[in-house]
Amino acid sequence: MLRYFSRTLVIFSKTRYLCVSANQSLSLPRKTPFGCLSFRFGVSKASSQSIMENVVTEHREQELLLLSASYDDFEGVIVNMKDAMDPAVFVASLRASISHWRQQGKNGVWIKLPIELANLVEVVVKEGFWYHHAEPKYIMLVYWIPETANSLPVNATHRVGIGAFVMNDKKEVLVVQEKSGKFRGTGVWKFPTGVVDEGEDICKGAVREVKEETGIDAEFVEVLAFRQSHKSFFEKSDLFFLCMLRPLSFEIQKQDLEIEAAQWMPIEEYAAQPFVQRHELFKYFSDICLAKIDGAYAGFAPISTTTSFSAKPGYMYFNTRDFNHHQKSGNHP
Amino acid sequence: MLRYFSRTLVIFSKTRYLCVSANQSLSLPRKTPFGCLSFRFGVSKASSQSIMENVVTEHREQELLLLSASYDDFEGVIVNMKDAMDPAVFVASLRASISHWRQQGKNGVWIKLPIELANLVEVVVKEGFWYHHAEPKYIMLVYWIPETANSLPVNATHRVGIGAFVMNDKKEVLVVQEKSGKFRGTGVWKFPTGVVDEGEDICKGAVREVKEETGIDAEFVEVLAFRQSHKSFFEKSDLFFLCMLRPLSFEIQKQDLEIEAAQWMPIEEYAAQPFVQRHELFKYFSDICLAKIDGAYAGFAPISTTTSFSAKPGYMYFNTRDFNHHQKSGNHP
Repeated sequence: MLRYFSRTLVIFSKTRYLCVSANQSLSLPRKTPFGCLSFRFGVSKASSQSIMENVVTEHREQELLLLSASYDDFEGVIVNMKDAMDPAVFVASLRASISHWRQQGKNGVWIKLPIELANLVEVVVKEGFWYHHAEPKYIMLVYWIPETANSLPVNATHRVGIGAFVMNDKKEVLVVQEKSGKFRGTGVWKFPTGVVDEGEDICKGAVREVKEETGIDAEFVEVLAFRQSHKSFFEKSDLFFLCMLRPLSFEIQKQDLEIEAAQWMPIEEYAAQPFVQRHELFKYFSDICLAKIDGAYAGFAPISTTTSFSAKPGYMYFNTRDFNHHQKSGNHP
Repeated sequence: MLRYFSRTLVIFSKTRYLCVSANQSLSLPRKTPFGCLSFRFGVSKASSQSIMENVVTEHREQELLLLSASYDDFEGVIVNMKDAMDPAVFVASLRASISHWRQQGKNGVWIKLPIELANLVEVVVKEGFWYHHAEPKYIMLVYWIPETANSLPVNATHRVGIGAFVMNDKKEVLVVQEKSGKFRGTGVWKFPTGVVDEGEDICKGAVREVKEETGIDAEFVEVLAFRQSHKSFFEKSDLFFLCMLRPLSFEIQKQDLEIEAAQWMPIEEYAAQPFVQRHELFKYFSDICLAKIDGAYAGFAPISTTTSFSAKPGYMYFNTRDFNHHQKSGNHP
């Protein structure tokens, strides 16, 4: 779809507005030791290289200023647009740049446009780019140079939600009624639920949601189960984690905006609700919580870890009861 | 940011190109029984309502055709643009529509623009809209009408990856060397890994990736552990699931594009690799697999379920060993 620009005839003076700044590089592995964990922005000492070159055409000695970009470990190029540019000038520069990158054997081309440069979206699309993803303040467009099928990584596909099972010493569970959504006006008492914020750990998001909705302080214990569903929101999928939390305070102060009512309720009363009994998933969740109360059920507990390569903090969740028992038993290499 | 259009003076004839089609409604709960599961497209019989009205201004009897849209259960309005429109005409119609929706007490306004209508992105942004998300073929823009803080649901935040622990009867584990990424040329043998496709179940994605990379047929057994990490890719987070699979075939046919080598390797040899021993997360994963081999470790097995409201299929993952044992013991209500 891209119109080639094999013999560059455009002349640019080295004006500042053409010096598109790029201070980030993009790692683009399709596979990683963790499947998908190492895509990231960040200056890569090994391979990041700024492109801001004068290209001498074969016909005349003409100066052409290419778009500034960074390389990555995966033959990709990223252009991080920051300053306004005349669309026509930008297109000419983009065409020349792609021609240059093609000669270099580059594959994927990423252009990040802040929302202030929305006027450039149309021209980039007309050059054969397509949307990769967008966040409130920018849109990322991509293009694949080679003839081969593109192996560009996919956009985020999932949202992550939590439901919190919080029980006090009297075997009363923390439940709420919501002001909006499917449960409005139904009288159904449910666990506090919420969506994990961008960049937030599941174990921290669960604690935050319980605090926000009910005022109860709690500490995270385990993920008891999780559920993946699809086409939940604009074709995206959901991962919902049923989490057990231990309460550290007991006086409820409900949030008024979203919560109609909140209380501690005997677990049997919660479980006996017709809605819970009638719906397979709620019944499973309720039964898992009851098994947990009996001490019969091990979920996945979080431990803090760092990733191997970037030393970024994060949490790993696994069956620590079985694991620790196995390690102590010495029945392993 | 939106410029008001309180007294509509624009005259439109009822030409077809103004009849922006909208055949979808959007459910917008901020909270759901599962935290985030019920945002979805789909015609809502209860509340979906097409808007295509003639507005009579206070000055003259003029016809103004508003943008066609659908309502949802949460006071939101969605405009699903399909046909080309002159940008100036579109802006006038959008302003009048927002004025109309404001009078109706609507909150969020969603405009979905296919990539073919990239020329409208700039004008929508100039009306005060911002980007919500984008997929290859469209961009979704949003606007919040009331004075209050917007409670629009967030975009997808996570990508989901899998790593596959596949062991044959000789206690040999299926391992690969990758052609690109961090492990290129390191000689490190690793489990097959991959990214779950949009809309794909974790248990099915793991089976697919093993087949694609090594030609081995396998059936899913359990999620042994998972790991959440952040800022992995364009500020997005990752959930990586370590999965156990049981091989159903044993002859390796490696995929040449991404995989340098593939083999069955004694588990002890895999675990003894300096890289595995040196990196906390790999060591944990390796030790969990060894505990699993000894029969000492219960992970989360998938069971097929449907969601309560939409009857959509999906999988729930939990400790079925403990759960089933508890149910059989009768030690529960």
